[in-house]
Amino acid sequence: MISAGRLYPADTVTLREVGLRDGLQLVRRFPTTAAKKQWLQQEHAAGVRHFEVGSFLPASRMPQFADVHDLIAETARLGAYSSALALNERGAKDACDAQVDEIINVISATEEHSQANMRRSRADAIELVRRTRALSDASDHKPLVNAGIAMAFGCSIAGEVNTSEVLRLAEACLRAGAHAVGLADTVGFAGPAQVAALTRDLVTLCGDTPVLVHLHDTRGMAVANAAAAIDAGARALDGSLGGLGGCPFAPGATGNAVFEDLVYLCERTGIPTGIDLAALIGVRRILETEMPDEQLHGALARSGLPPRVKWTA
Amino acid sequence: MISAGRLYPADTVTLREVGLRDGLQLVRRFPTTAAKKQWLQQEHAAGVRHFEVGSFLPASRMPQFADVHDLIAETARLGAYSSALALNERGAKDACDAQVDEIINVISATEEHSQANMRRSRADAIELVRRTRALSDASDHKPLVNAGIAMAFGCSIAGEVNTSEVLRLAEACLRAGAHAVGLADTVGFAGPAQVAALTRDLVTLCGDTPVLVHLHDTRGMAVANAAAAIDAGARALDGSLGGLGGCPFAPGATGNAVFEDLVYLCERTGIPTGIDLAALIGVRRILETEMPDEQLHGALARSGLPPRVKWTA
Repeated sequence: MISAGRLYPADTVTLREVGLRDGLQLVRRFPTTAAKKQWLQQEHAAGVRHFEVGSFLPASRMPQFADVHDLIAETARLGAYSSALALNERGAKDACDAQVDEIINVISATEEHSQANMRRSRADAIELVRRTRALSDASDHKPLVNAGIAMAFGCSIAGEVNTSEVLRLAEACLRAGAHAVGLADTVGFAGPAQVAALTRDLVTLCGDTPVLVHLHDTRGMAVANAAAAIDAGARALDGSLGGLGGCPFAPGATGNAVFEDLVYLCERTGIPTGIDLAALIGVRRILETEMPDEQLHGALARSGLPPRVKWTA
Repeated sequence: MISAGRLYPADTVTLREVGLRDGLQLVRRFPTTAAKKQWLQQEHAAGVRHFEVGSFLPASRMPQFADVHDLIAETARLGAYSSALALNERGAKDACDAQVDEIINVISATEEHSQANMRRSRADAIELVRRTRALSDASDHKPLVNAGIAMAFGCSIAGEVNTSEVLRLAEACLRAGAHAVGLADTVGFAGPAQVAALTRDLVTLCGDTPVLVHLHDTRGMAVANAAAAIDAGARALDGSLGGLGGCPFAPGATGNAVFEDLVYLCERTGIPTGIDLAALIGVRRILETEMPDEQLHGALARSGLPPRVKWTA
């Protein structure tokens, strides 16, 4: 059985590579399974240990995630942790059977987004957390149940999001049995003061339960928001190599927080990541080869590591 | 006479547009004086009030700053504040005669960089602050004397920079009569924890004297570092439209902090800037037309403003 404390130790900040899931959500052409395994292998060799590898949806709807079982197995073979999305009970059951280490349920912060995007109420989304937890408890592998609150800092449909509403949803997720709770700036609206305040409140609410923060760099705030989340007690941050992954509401904008820049931020902030940044940047070649139409982002890949100073933690 | 409190009010964060100086330091082709004036006029119309407009160096060495007198006059005509670099006594004298509002002297944080880059000692650089202050006091316009410490967070030549050394230099600048003290991350080495700590110490040391922070986005940390500087009490931040301005030590890397992204950061953090962000982004057209070879950066220009939420302070 996997414990939240082992997956997300309280004394550090864990970096999660979500490129194989969120990074591939909108790409025109996606990597072969063999290339995805190389991506996993090379990032693992560079020191990355947490991979979000896909979504349990019918392959007819999301063909880029048809190989999620293979990638969970490959991640386990490497001795790393895998996570995957499950957006309905069937997906949660399949995820348990696949022996994924962590199942991510998504709850929209606003009723408007929940109905428009997921065609269900937020109450139904929380009910899925409860069922996912029951399925996990009944399974052999007992994956962690991670409840991620999408649009937590602003909603593409409803606009402003009420902080107390987000905290109320988070509390409902905890009561439903979530082992970890996430805040997602799905469309890149957040600023650091907002991230600091909401993360701090949620950390207080969650006690020992880890709080994870998922940021997008749509408006250039991802690193600043990550720094704010770290200061406020977030236990894990999500990013994707090269910032892979766009935003459907802001075409041309940057996508996920750039994983390699988050590594640099952590190291520069005194938090050891165990990740070899030069080796990590080298893995971008797989993405460039497999997805030549996608624009990769990231400052470290352009600038190189800072010479002649100790920047590692 | 210009007071530091009027130029940099204690109850807000002032954003300085340095594109017309630092942005043009390395460009292959620079805008015409007419285009520079349009840049000033359009940014002024968007609400920008502080412009670094050039450097008092022989035009034979830096032809891009040959029109510094014209730009100081244009800035004054608009009712905005102008600043310019003076790196020797002749330049400081010319700057006073030109009725610039603020003269920037530069002191290297390390003796190695001071000798290699400026061919003088740090003690000589501080002596220039004293002389610039005397020239200012004796002039009609009495410009502010701003002592900027370059390489304050890491040096391209010496590597690590001792924080206590930076504070010692800052104290010497204050004793020499500086009206404001700046910290510059000249080569983009800094991380937010480092910026927070050094800025906080300098703010304590400076008392009522404003502390200004000049950041580069070479390693993607500029916005995070800016947020840290704001939290630590910095009175002003520098940026350039589109992040114009490279780094001689990291070809291809991003340059100055992106001015428009700093505006977004401030507004999102509850600090009103008085700047119309959409209008500001529109000014990029001048740069694109005048300097088609230069790559502009910045997330807001790509993503657009966040819809349906109140992001202004």
